Amino acid sequence: MSSIFTKIIKGEIPCYMIAEDEDYFAFLDINPNSKGHTLCVPKKEVDKIMDLDEETYMGLMAFSRKVGMAIEAAIDCKRVGLTVIGLEVPHVHVHLIPLQGMRDATFQNKIALTPGEFEAIAQSIRSRM
Amino acid sequence: MSSIFTKIIKGEIPCYMIAEDEDYFAFLDINPNSKGHTLCVPKKEVDKIMDLDEETYMGLMAFSRKVGMAIEAAIDCKRVGLTVIGLEVPHVHVHLIPLQGMRDATFQNKIALTPGEFEAIAQSIRSRM
Repeated sequence: MSSIFTKIIKGEIPCYMIAEDEDYFAFLDINPNSKGHTLCVPKKEVDKIMDLDEETYMGLMAFSRKVGMAIEAAIDCKRVGLTVIGLEVPHVHVHLIPLQGMRDATFQNKIALTPGEFEAIAQSIRSRM
Repeated sequence: MSSIFTKIIKGEIPCYMIAEDEDYFAFLDINPNSKGHTLCVPKKEVDKIMDLDEETYMGLMAFSRKVGMAIEAAIDCKRVGLTVIGLEVPHVHVHLIPLQGMRDATFQNKIALTPGEFEAIAQSIRSRM
């Protein structure tokens, strides 16, 4: 069965899209730690980051860097953090999280945004890509 | 002034070393989230990950992948997570963290190890490199 991220990539589940190329896809995390929290995903469905083949892993990291730089330009924050955990969805995803402090990096303090806020954030990041 | 990581790389502060090449250095985090928690650092001292030049960033990610695969082979865990935060030490560092659950990824639950335990862990990871 397809992962929830594959369904998002295929357009079967809606998302606030940030960027896409042949092999990777980026969209806003719908349960964000902070404004601008984005997920970067390889289209290839692999569970663990250390199981990715070298080419896909390196491509994912290059793609995440481009998206991360756009987030840092678009969102007021001290810096953008990068995290791969993956205990919940078995499809590798890089979290890019605008950080004001450590609480934004712990995944324990979530924020609520309206659809209009999500769309404005996505548009602002996309305009820096 | 040199960062604490530059002092570790130069051998001015002791560490449990995991791996080194011309541009990168890996050693055990002395205040670990879990057994095998390792830091990968570029020898070039840059504060924010998104400010690294592309070559150094990509090299750091390739180096971290090799170290992460060795950790996953050496340490009993569900997977190895990868995190860059950097709010405390202004010298880019990739955390590689053996995860059993989300609590190992939050940086809020630290474990204590003896020097002998650190050394045994380091040796076990090094033997997989």
